[in-house]
Parts: sequence; structure tokens; C-alpha cells
Amino acid sequence: MPCRGGGRPGPDGKDGDRARLAGRSGPRRTGAVRGPRGGAAGHRARLQTATVSRAPARLVQARVGSRLGMADRTSRTARRVFKRTVPGPLHDERSWAFHLGPGGRDLVLGIEWLREAFLLREPGYPSGITVPTIVDIPTGHVVTNGFERITLDLGSRWAAHQRDGAPDLCPERWRDEIEDVADKVYRDVNDGVYRCGFAGGRQAYDEAYRRLWERLDWLEERLAGRRYLVGDTVTEADVRLFPTLVRFDAVYHGHFTCNRQKLTELPALWACARDLFQTPGFGETIDFAQIKAHYYVVHHDINPTGTVPRGPDTRGWLSPHGREELGGNPFGDGTPPGPPPPSERVPPLGSTTVDV
Amino acid sequence: MPCRGGGRPGPDGKDGDRARLAGRSGPRRTGAVRGPRGGAAGHRARLQTATVSRAPARLVQARVGSRLGMADRTSRTARRVFKRTVPGPLHDERSWAFHLGPGGRDLVLGIEWLREAFLLREPGYPSGITVPTIVDIPTGHVVTNGFERITLDLGSRWAAHQRDGAPDLCPERWRDEIEDVADKVYRDVNDGVYRCGFAGGRQAYDEAYRRLWERLDWLEERLAGRRYLVGDTVTEADVRLFPTLVRFDAVYHGHFTCNRQKLTELPALWACARDLFQTPGFGETIDFAQIKAHYYVVHHDINPTGTVPRGPDTRGWLSPHGREELGGNPFGDGTPPGPPPPSERVPPLGSTTVDV
Repeated sequence: MPCRGGGRPGPDGKDGDRARLAGRSGPRRTGAVRGPRGGAAGHRARLQTATVSRAPARLVQARVGSRLGMADRTSRTARRVFKRTVPGPLHDERSWAFHLGPGGRDLVLGIEWLREAFLLREPGYPSGITVPTIVDIPTGHVVTNGFERITLDLGSRWAAHQRDGAPDLCPERWRDEIEDVADKVYRDVNDGVYRCGFAGGRQAYDEAYRRLWERLDWLEERLAGRRYLVGDTVTEADVRLFPTLVRFDAVYHGHFTCNRQKLTELPALWACARDLFQTPGFGETIDFAQIKAHYYVVHHDINPTGTVPRGPDTRGWLSPHGREELGGNPFGDGTPPGPPPPSERVPPLGSTTVDV
Repeated sequence: MPCRGGGRPGPDGKDGDRARLAGRSGPRRTGAVRGPRGGAAGHRARLQTATVSRAPARLVQARVGSRLGMADRTSRTARRVFKRTVPGPLHDERSWAFHLGPGGRDLVLGIEWLREAFLLREPGYPSGITVPTIVDIPTGHVVTNGFERITLDLGSRWAAHQRDGAPDLCPERWRDEIEDVADKVYRDVNDGVYRCGFAGGRQAYDEAYRRLWERLDWLEERLAGRRYLVGDTVTEADVRLFPTLVRFDAVYHGHFTCNRQKLTELPALWACARDLFQTPGFGETIDFAQIKAHYYVVHHDINPTGTVPRGPDTRGWLSPHGREELGGNPFGDGTPPGPPPPSERVPPLGSTTVDV
């Protein structure tokens, strides 16, 4: 998980790598599929154009429900460039649906299903239709769904388009440690909960469960004495951990049988998660009702009844966490982002949609 | 839920009521099915014979996995009369199986499936094959599976066969309050978790969930200031609550989507549950691995993958509960039961079968 930008489309034209589709279906990564020669350069040019034209450009598919916090990162660092299009919480075998948009279509791309953008790029595309995805408006093609790179590229190759005061999530002096920790978080936690939930058998489940909990124990110990995973500000490592923590009790604990403890039973991780949740740019766009609706309805194979649990009680996310005593400053030399735009606001915790 | 004995077969010959099968399938109670005229009297005579002959009489089907603590109650108060036959944790459409017995059969009754005893009593019996069940050895017929009455009858009509020092679980001076509380516990909690898990739709689930949590909140408040639900000793009310509490985090929280909180997040109920678990006669026969194996494997309709979660960590059940400070004495004027016989012992908490 290199912090260094490169390999994926950026706005500067310096990188010759082609865009790619990193297909992902459930917990299994499929092989990367390279796009047509010269495609990336074309996308870059169009992205630069979009930068100038601003709204109504909608380039980023960065769902609130994604595991990697792209929504927050996108909003925080690149709102000048990207406008997010967020599909509804549901998809079926035809992929994510824009069922919440006017006429059931995405306002800019005019498509009903995200799959359409993948098939425009590669007819017969055989792998998972995943989010986050970057789509090129003029052609309607997917540019990339390589989630490992998108946040990194937004923070490096697209840095010129960040707002004034945007924090550096991968500072040079901490880079090696951030890469190491973020890689561990990705392999054992972000991906680990999926490997538990979709394990093909007892042995695979046991192994995924063991690795998940060894890593959570390691994180719990690490976070007991320090506010952030690396250095003394929010970094890419925390950004990677947050989406799994925020979904843990609502989804992974029961639905994916990751149930040794709830997050609320792990003091340092639970306090860290609340700290991040209450930090501008993290919690404001978390909609627990949509998160639960997605997992419990879409995964018919592991929840055939489609019952969406009313719990857990999420109001604790706003309780004091006491992490300020450990020092640190979430944004370092930067400044907090402003509030999310009205279109991205979610119901407050404890409202009817997440009623307990 | 009357504490007073009566209506179901006892050893004293004073009651003319006929035995009945109280069929139960999943969360739905089916109508009671009355047995043939004179059947109860016949059963009574045979039960008295069994009392004298002692072992190897095996009369009671009182599974560890039952929701009503019959196993404990049976062991504690009527070991002189009954020997338990405990089927394995699994059953399929043919009902509970004696797959852990020699040759896959029950040692005394010689049957492979509990269903066989129901069909001997009533050919074509159409309702649920449930435990606990009392079976008459000479005929191999089911006498009753009316779980609401069995514990009560063991404590009243079979009192003469209890060990010396057996506690009175339904003392006369608390009887009305015990009946009231035990009835609330049964309707909203014992049965409520099943109504959540097997709800036929959103509305039914929401209603069951609301009633469950209103009742758990009521119990939490009641138990905050008193050690036991009624009076100052263990009564039938606590005996009814315990089996649901002990299974709550392991099964009902996730598998039945009763997930507002875990039991471990409800301070008084969690302390009360540990207090009972650590009281002789309650925790010694609880085998979390078998409990989980039963629910997660048997309920294919709500858990088609059959994955049995490794969690939750159960070691907390042995932690100090501090409830002695509230006064009271679990056995009142009685004495604690001795340890369970070797055949009923279960692996210690934290051993490999409930490995976390």
C-alpha cells in the first residue's frame, strides 16, 4: 500500500500508466483489467477540463457505504474537482442502482445501473461492479475502481486541486510507517471482515477470524497510548481503519460473524472510533440505516429473510471519548473541512431511520 | 403461568387431567392435542414405578439447549426420579436426533429420533417435535411436551421426590408476584426472541423487537436494586429468565437480530445473569458450543451458510458480579445441589469448543 502517488490517472499528465478496472466481487479480488492504450491520458485531459468547469461535473462514484472512507476523503480534499454521485443502498445482480435519483437515473451520467459505465469501458466485463469508481463524463466510461489507489491519488496526484488548508494525510516523515500500518489494516481488518462473512468453509472462516482478532488486539494495544495510528495527526492509516470500525457493530459483528466482541467492548478502539466520528469530515455522512439496508438486504445468500436489524443503538457515537488527553491534532498544520453540502447530509443519530 | 401444580401428570394420582402434547414449531404455539382417555393415569403409575426402580429409568427429555432451564431444574429437584436423556445439538426435518448416543440411538428408549416417541403416542402427529419432553419408558410414548407446566409440576406435584434440602422455587407468600413476573418474562423475552428471529415481516419483527426491549429495560430497572426478580431467593421467575439470558449474546443478539445491545451492555441484567450462572445448578451444564451449533446449523432458513460463529468470548461469565451486596440467599431455607454427574458435565469455558 504505497502512499506515493502514481500508476493511476492523475491530472498532471506525468504518468503514463493506463487506467485499470480493479474488479472486486464480495471478498475476492479479481485480476486487474487494463484499459485501452492511451485511455488514461484521455481521462486525465477530461478530468482537467472538469476541474475548470466545476459543477455540474460528477466524476466520482464514492459511496457513503464504501469501506475506505472515500466519501469523506473526496469531500474533504477534492470537492473543487469532484462531485459525488451516491447510488441508493441497494443493488441486485445488475449492480448498484441509482434508485434514489430522479427517474431512477443518475442526474449527470443518465444511467440506471453503475454496471452500464463498466460495460461501456469493457463490453462483457466479467468481474465485480464495485464502488468507489471514477467515471469519465464525456464518454461515460469507468476510469478506475481500484480502491486501494483512489484515496492515495486524491491526496498526491490531485493535491493541486485540494482546498486551501487541506491536511496532508501521508506526511513524508511518517510515510513508511503509514504504509506499513495501513497495509496491515487493509489485509486483516478491511478485507478480513469480508473473509469472515463470505468464508467458503470452516477453515477459511477460522483463519480469517483469527487474523482479524489478532489485528484488532494489536490495534487496541497501539491505540491505548496514542491518539492516532501514526504520528500525531489523522493519516491515511486512520482513514483506512475508520470505515470498518464504523460498520463493525451495525453489520460485521453479526452479519459477518465477527463476534468475539463488539467495538463498544474494546475501550481504545471504541474511543478512537468516536474521536474520528466526531472529527469534521468523518461522521457527518455516515447513515447507519443505509449501511444496514445495504448489507442485510443485498446479501441474500447469507441473510435470506432480508430482515434489517433495528439495532444496534448508535447514539453512543456522540458520547465523549476523552482522546484529547493523548495530545495530537487531527488536521496538523491544516484546517478542518466545512460541513457537508445539503445533498450529502444524513439523518441525525437516533432519528427514526436508525430508531432503536 | 400459574405456579400451582395441576393438570399434567404427577405421581400422586390425584389429578384426572389427561396428558397432552403441546406442540410447538419455531416461535408459533400450536394447539394442545389431548391424549387418549385414561392415558395420564397409566403414565402416573409407570412414573411411580420408575421412581422406585431408579436408574436405568430415563424419563425426561430435558435438553441443555431448552429455553426453560429444565435441565437444571430437573437435575436439582428430581434427580431421584428422572434421568435425563440429552440428544445431540442437531436435528433436521425428522426432529431431534440421538446422534451422540451409542449407535446413534437413545440408550433406554432405543430410538434414533425423538419424533418416534411422538408418533407412538399419536400416529401422524402434525405439530412441532419439541423438547423438553417426558417419555414413558414401558410404552415409549410421549407423555407431555408442555414446557410451560413441566418445571412447575416438578416443583409441586413431584415435590415428594425431590432431594432433601431442595429449595422452594415458588414459595406461597410470593406466588402471585412470581406468576406475574414469570408470565411477562415468558411472553416478551423467552418467546420474544423467537418472534424477532422468525418474524414473517417487518411489522412483526418491529413489534417483537419493541416488546422485547421494553421488557428488558423493565427487567434491567427491576434488577438494579434487588438481587432476584421476586423475594430474596431464586424463584421460578429467575429460572425462566436465565435460559434466554445465557443464550442472548451467543445466539439471539445476532442470529435472531435482537441487537439493540448485548447482554454484556446491560449492567444489572449482565450481573444478574453471571450471578445465576455461578450459582450451583445453573451454569455447570451450559455448553455454549452446543448451543451455537444447534441454532446456527439447524436454522438453515435464516443461516444458509451454516457458519457457526467463534464468538462471543464467554469467559466473562465467570467474572465477579458483586450481587451479594444486594443481600438475599439463592436457596432460601434450602441447600445447594451437588455437582452434576459426570455424564452431564460440559467443557470448561474458554476451552477449545468455545474457543475465541
